[in-house]
Amino acid sequence: MQFEYDNPTRVIFGAGTLARLGELTRPHGQRALVVTGGGSVKRSGLFERATKSLGDAGITVFECAGIEPNPRLSSVKRGAAIARDNGCDVIVALGGGSTMDASKAIAAAVFHDGDPWDMIYHGQPHPHVPTRALPLIAVPTLAATGSEMNSGAVISNEETTEKSFMRADCLYPRVALLDPELTLGVPRDQTAYGVCDLITHVTESYFNGVDDTPLQDRFAEGVILTALEYGPRAIANGADLEARAQIQWAATLALNGWVNVGTNGGYPVHMIEHTVSAYHDITHAAGLAIINPAWMRFAARHRPARFVQFAQRVFGLPAQGPDDLAAALAGIDRFEAFLKSIGCPTRFSELGIGDALIETYARDTVRIINDGKGNLPGRPPMSEADIVAVLTAAL
Amino acid sequence: MQFEYDNPTRVIFGAGTLARLGELTRPHGQRALVVTGGGSVKRSGLFERATKSLGDAGITVFECAGIEPNPRLSSVKRGAAIARDNGCDVIVALGGGSTMDASKAIAAAVFHDGDPWDMIYHGQPHPHVPTRALPLIAVPTLAATGSEMNSGAVISNEETTEKSFMRADCLYPRVALLDPELTLGVPRDQTAYGVCDLITHVTESYFNGVDDTPLQDRFAEGVILTALEYGPRAIANGADLEARAQIQWAATLALNGWVNVGTNGGYPVHMIEHTVSAYHDITHAAGLAIINPAWMRFAARHRPARFVQFAQRVFGLPAQGPDDLAAALAGIDRFEAFLKSIGCPTRFSELGIGDALIETYARDTVRIINDGKGNLPGRPPMSEADIVAVLTAAL
Repeated sequence: MQFEYDNPTRVIFGAGTLARLGELTRPHGQRALVVTGGGSVKRSGLFERATKSLGDAGITVFECAGIEPNPRLSSVKRGAAIARDNGCDVIVALGGGSTMDASKAIAAAVFHDGDPWDMIYHGQPHPHVPTRALPLIAVPTLAATGSEMNSGAVISNEETTEKSFMRADCLYPRVALLDPELTLGVPRDQTAYGVCDLITHVTESYFNGVDDTPLQDRFAEGVILTALEYGPRAIANGADLEARAQIQWAATLALNGWVNVGTNGGYPVHMIEHTVSAYHDITHAAGLAIINPAWMRFAARHRPARFVQFAQRVFGLPAQGPDDLAAALAGIDRFEAFLKSIGCPTRFSELGIGDALIETYARDTVRIINDGKGNLPGRPPMSEADIVAVLTAAL
Repeated sequence: MQFEYDNPTRVIFGAGTLARLGELTRPHGQRALVVTGGGSVKRSGLFERATKSLGDAGITVFECAGIEPNPRLSSVKRGAAIARDNGCDVIVALGGGSTMDASKAIAAAVFHDGDPWDMIYHGQPHPHVPTRALPLIAVPTLAATGSEMNSGAVISNEETTEKSFMRADCLYPRVALLDPELTLGVPRDQTAYGVCDLITHVTESYFNGVDDTPLQDRFAEGVILTALEYGPRAIANGADLEARAQIQWAATLALNGWVNVGTNGGYPVHMIEHTVSAYHDITHAAGLAIINPAWMRFAARHRPARFVQFAQRVFGLPAQGPDDLAAALAGIDRFEAFLKSIGCPTRFSELGIGDALIETYARDTVRIINDGKGNLPGRPPMSEADIVAVLTAAL
């Protein structure tokens, strides 16, 4: 186990903390670009509360509304132009993962000459990885992506039909303001997708990471167990503040490094989903819910012991030894049944997606990220044919 | 659940990373005070390797050796004088928890006019909480206290027979260099004490924290389960690098906030141990091994459900309902048996400590920290009589 960890984001967690937004933003700037999504923050009154807190702290507010669920490069360009034109010195992301991701890209694009896609593409080391960005205050209104406490962002290029990510130290939010009250109004389906999203973040590192990370395993299982316990509560009763709080903290932990530090694995399910949703404007987590169990059944055959551990520790299932494939598959069945029980789709047919582009998804996935031998990184690495097989099993 | 979390320490983890000490220190200073303990780092050649790495990076090395196992105020004053006299601009702590804690106090004392005890006493808000300290690079040679990634330090005042702590944001190490190879030579007893120390850090927040922290519970259980699995391996075979690595990461996680964030509880076992070891120069963790099970048996009667959870999740014991005191006590028995099995004492008589000062320990404990009503904070708060009862049960 070899790793480095350094996360500068300051977390402020608790019901009612939105009132501190102005106070927490003021040390970082006085001309704030507030980035929002489709309008729910206006309908709920949240935008007004947020901008009032900012105004009370002496901060001038500018606005970039309308970030799409899969945030587009054109929105990044638009946001960066607004920030530049108005001399904004801080960004406040007020929304879900897409809003936070777009905000990160905007924060860096402000300082980037040329097309922001240069710096976004692939997330691999390249000459345009940003080294400078406006300070970002992340205020998630949805427990899902964990973007509020990490340095990554996923952006879609509508011109090239690509969806890819960027990652850079300068993209860590300075503050993650986690007020679970803001998530009380999230509809059932979006709540369920958030639960699926956070679990999938954890399963990716759990199943694709290096060997011998027992603490990370335990932490991952802890996040999943908590999501299994509190997710259904939050879905059944959206006003359950306690359940909302636990799911929100779980979503942050799922991708802030505390669980996956040192695991150093690929994210094959995410990579495949990104290509599919580059062609179909589906909710990211709906795609994950469909692909993840199918991927697990594929991967379990290569490494049953890890899936037996999952079945035992997460679902309490018995197993006859560490390589008991039947027990491994039983755990995956339980996981898929959980996803169904909270209302997630588990087959592409439920979204009206057929097999017409299946080879295209596979080809695009390994084109965007591969191990140099044409395979998608993960345990095991996946050939295009493997991806086609997994997607076919999920039709 | 309401909390703030902000930990600026950069973690560098992995076998062999000591070679990077100079490179990692250089951005923070060029005149380093290297603080060490009783001499084992010289005998092992580690001091020479460390100072060579520093020298190769162009850093001039000064030395403060001889920090005691319970680091004394006089050593803090001595170290600060060496740093001041030589214009040191960075501190490198090379040793165990006592060396790291002394280094933190030295780092702050350099900028403090007057007696450093002013700023150390109690760890409560007071006028002398330090706001400025030399940058600190922590290189633990023992997996135990977790001091390498937190902002606290425990110091003993030999003149007043007090042992107390300080905590301040400026005391976070800039870098925690965690090289498990450095712990390969730790003797069996010290290895066992480290395991006990890290588990006790976790049990304190687990049993004394606020309600409704299910993620923190799972993380705490994960750290304990990992310590139960890898601790005995590291003790049985000190050259087991894999076990050493897991125990080292567990020790860091036990007190860097990832487990206890938001739990906001007292540390009664530590507070009682500090008073006892202010009178007897015993190893901190030996005192913890004795006091913790006795404290657990006391606390379980007030809150059996939490101890039943511990018995079930950590030791896999069955329980007849959440308030099954018998199951709770069975879990504590298992925990005490584990401590014995790794060679820790579990009664004061094993250390030659009798009941002569037992009321004094209790009085001193609540004098140093109390809830304003004369009770030691914790679940439940403890009167002096409660402390005497727990210590008596541990004789």
